[in-house]
Amino acid sequence: GEQLGVRCLAQGRLSHGLLALGIEGQLFSFSTRIYMDFNATTPVEPEVISAITEALCDAWGNPSSTYLPGLKAKGIMNQARDSIARMVGGKASDIIFTSGGTEANNMVFHSALEHFWKSRASAEGGQEENHQPNGKKVLPHVITSNVEHDSIRLTAEHLLKVGKADVTFLPVSKVTGRVEVEDVMAAMRPNTCLVTVMLANNETGVIMPIKDICQKVRSAKRSSSSPRVLLHTDAAQAIGKIRVDAQELGVDYMTIVGHKFYAPRIGALYANGPGVMTPVYPLLFGGGQERNFRPGTENTAMIAGLGKVNSANCQYFRFNSHFPGTDTLPNTCNVSILGQGLQGHRVLSTCRRLLASVGAACHSDRGDQPSHILLNCGIPYHVAINALRISVGKGTSRQDVDAVVEDLRDAVERLEQTD
Amino acid sequence: GEQLGVRCLAQGRLSHGLLALGIEGQLFSFSTRIYMDFNATTPVEPEVISAITEALCDAWGNPSSTYLPGLKAKGIMNQARDSIARMVGGKASDIIFTSGGTEANNMVFHSALEHFWKSRASAEGGQEENHQPNGKKVLPHVITSNVEHDSIRLTAEHLLKVGKADVTFLPVSKVTGRVEVEDVMAAMRPNTCLVTVMLANNETGVIMPIKDICQKVRSAKRSSSSPRVLLHTDAAQAIGKIRVDAQELGVDYMTIVGHKFYAPRIGALYANGPGVMTPVYPLLFGGGQERNFRPGTENTAMIAGLGKVNSANCQYFRFNSHFPGTDTLPNTCNVSILGQGLQGHRVLSTCRRLLASVGAACHSDRGDQPSHILLNCGIPYHVAINALRISVGKGTSRQDVDAVVEDLRDAVERLEQTD
Repeated sequence: GEQLGVRCLAQGRLSHGLLALGIEGQLFSFSTRIYMDFNATTPVEPEVISAITEALCDAWGNPSSTYLPGLKAKGIMNQARDSIARMVGGKASDIIFTSGGTEANNMVFHSALEHFWKSRASAEGGQEENHQPNGKKVLPHVITSNVEHDSIRLTAEHLLKVGKADVTFLPVSKVTGRVEVEDVMAAMRPNTCLVTVMLANNETGVIMPIKDICQKVRSAKRSSSSPRVLLHTDAAQAIGKIRVDAQELGVDYMTIVGHKFYAPRIGALYANGPGVMTPVYPLLFGGGQERNFRPGTENTAMIAGLGKVNSANCQYFRFNSHFPGTDTLPNTCNVSILGQGLQGHRVLSTCRRLLASVGAACHSDRGDQPSHILLNCGIPYHVAINALRISVGKGTSRQDVDAVVEDLRDAVERLEQTD
Repeated sequence: GEQLGVRCLAQGRLSHGLLALGIEGQLFSFSTRIYMDFNATTPVEPEVISAITEALCDAWGNPSSTYLPGLKAKGIMNQARDSIARMVGGKASDIIFTSGGTEANNMVFHSALEHFWKSRASAEGGQEENHQPNGKKVLPHVITSNVEHDSIRLTAEHLLKVGKADVTFLPVSKVTGRVEVEDVMAAMRPNTCLVTVMLANNETGVIMPIKDICQKVRSAKRSSSSPRVLLHTDAAQAIGKIRVDAQELGVDYMTIVGHKFYAPRIGALYANGPGVMTPVYPLLFGGGQERNFRPGTENTAMIAGLGKVNSANCQYFRFNSHFPGTDTLPNTCNVSILGQGLQGHRVLSTCRRLLASVGAACHSDRGDQPSHILLNCGIPYHVAINALRISVGKGTSRQDVDAVVEDLRDAVERLEQTD
């Protein structure tokens, strides 16, 4: 047996973050080439590969079977479901495993449209069709942006083409690169039943104002005969790069794509209370798996890998001095390496060369407490306590920066091995 | 790194076949329990697990990317596609990878119904709806059996319930356990557009007369205004247990399910010239993968595993003296262990205890040639050359049989290691 840890490209996660620090990375190389297309896909974490291999060996039973091999598979899936739910701020019962993001996105359209027709039918006492004064059937209306992934865009275009939905493709602002909340609200119609906007764009990296969109859409005054507006965000590009909390965002649905965050090629649909609070209609019919929302024998091993990512992989960087529309000093970088056990003072004391601080020098005796400045600026406690204040001077060279990045990487690695 | 070969339950494939020999198996145990539910799912072959792990480590690139990691993934997928195609008697371009059998089965219904409506529309010059004399819309009609898997049954029931199709659920014969060809033909209607019958039943093991059904349906006289009748078989339970050749069967579609034949939880839809000779309409919309028939970033690792099974895993048993409606001597078992390098005379000369022959004793000097008796009985060359003629006598004990099974197992293992 070969050592997975040796064979696999282990540095993806950390180097990704380091690249985000703005330093040219040579940490992640593939046959002397430097991979910088992490938005296309990510390498799979070694511990995730181990989890997959282990599940293939030991948990190959059918999760629906009631004897030991089946129960083992079921147990692994339940753990993974818990783990993914925690990762995105939901409950385990909110997670429906799918084959990937494409399927999850298609399910959202299908569910919203089915819900539209079923609500119409029950409102009209069984009649499934409504008509406009001109005799035309009232179609469900969907709002989306003009920068969505093809699994949103082409689904919407197909529904439009075959006359199953009206769709507004909102252009993003050429100034901000974002879908603007006002544009969403202006596009709302009495028959709008779905707003779907990605959380972060896969080409520009622009983060969309999903929380604002959800709040405004929910508080909009609607006629009692209007359908419920379901809110969806495709979080494929955001998860693993920024903190993502479905409850905080206020969405009904969220698309989760494993291979964008160092997990395998499998996905999930988050739905806030599927079948109870949020309508979910299956695209497929079959053996009742995933509470009938998504039948088909579960891909236990890949799900095991997906579940493994949460704890291992959500250690990223957060820049504590990025405030929208605010300039910052060019020499100052206040950054937290996210993750348990990576408190700023621990990271610094593990670095061999870097001399920096966790906050103002005059408070350096309280290094095990988070900076009250950061807390006052709205940085969450668990982020603030990991903060590093790195400030460079006129004598600092590019080589110094490279050395520090290496230093930080080694320190984090050593701390992770300790935990 | 742990040795996969040691950790994994390696004997599944062979013991499965040995169980089929009618000898109580103690070869495949799980924590001192004996797993005999291989129709629910199968353990994953060690070499398949290795292929998956290797692909996760080395071929994690997005198969749509044009740089090395992506090309590597693409290459692995192409190999797997070739391998699966060969396994089921199709061309590589006939294979569309899906998340599993449930999705493949659902795609068949979707494709057949879309094709029905599109053909109608073009026949009527753009009008999408036809009506019966009583004003009712003519619905597409599907013929299936009453012993299908839930992914067929529930899809059919759903289409029936929502008024999108007429469905005939043919009862299988209580005498033969099979769907009878005459019943299929009697159920045919002018608007029949799909016949879907499983190749082998998952509970009884009964093999359905798919070839006959296909021949009869294809040669039936139909009005020129009648839609084409598409032919589908769900081969989930048959592949890996009997030889399956889609061309020979004459089907338009066939469902392939990895985890039923020691491969991972992934599947494929065989379609005979998809989009050209056989209509395939996608259930999902997205990034154009699988020639747009099934978009979504491909599950490279699982596909790699699926592709690995073909050569490694299609060594099964074929009983050369099972002829329908024919009695055989109770002491005679003429069986071929299928697979390259497993010629009868090689297997026998590798056995330590078993003394048997490859044909009539008077031809024993021609042991490297297949028996002309078997060839004359219609047994294919590659099967006949692997034949073992095992005949027991009145002194043969149960213990003798057990010992011979062990002997054969060891012999095949040794021969496989040699190759």
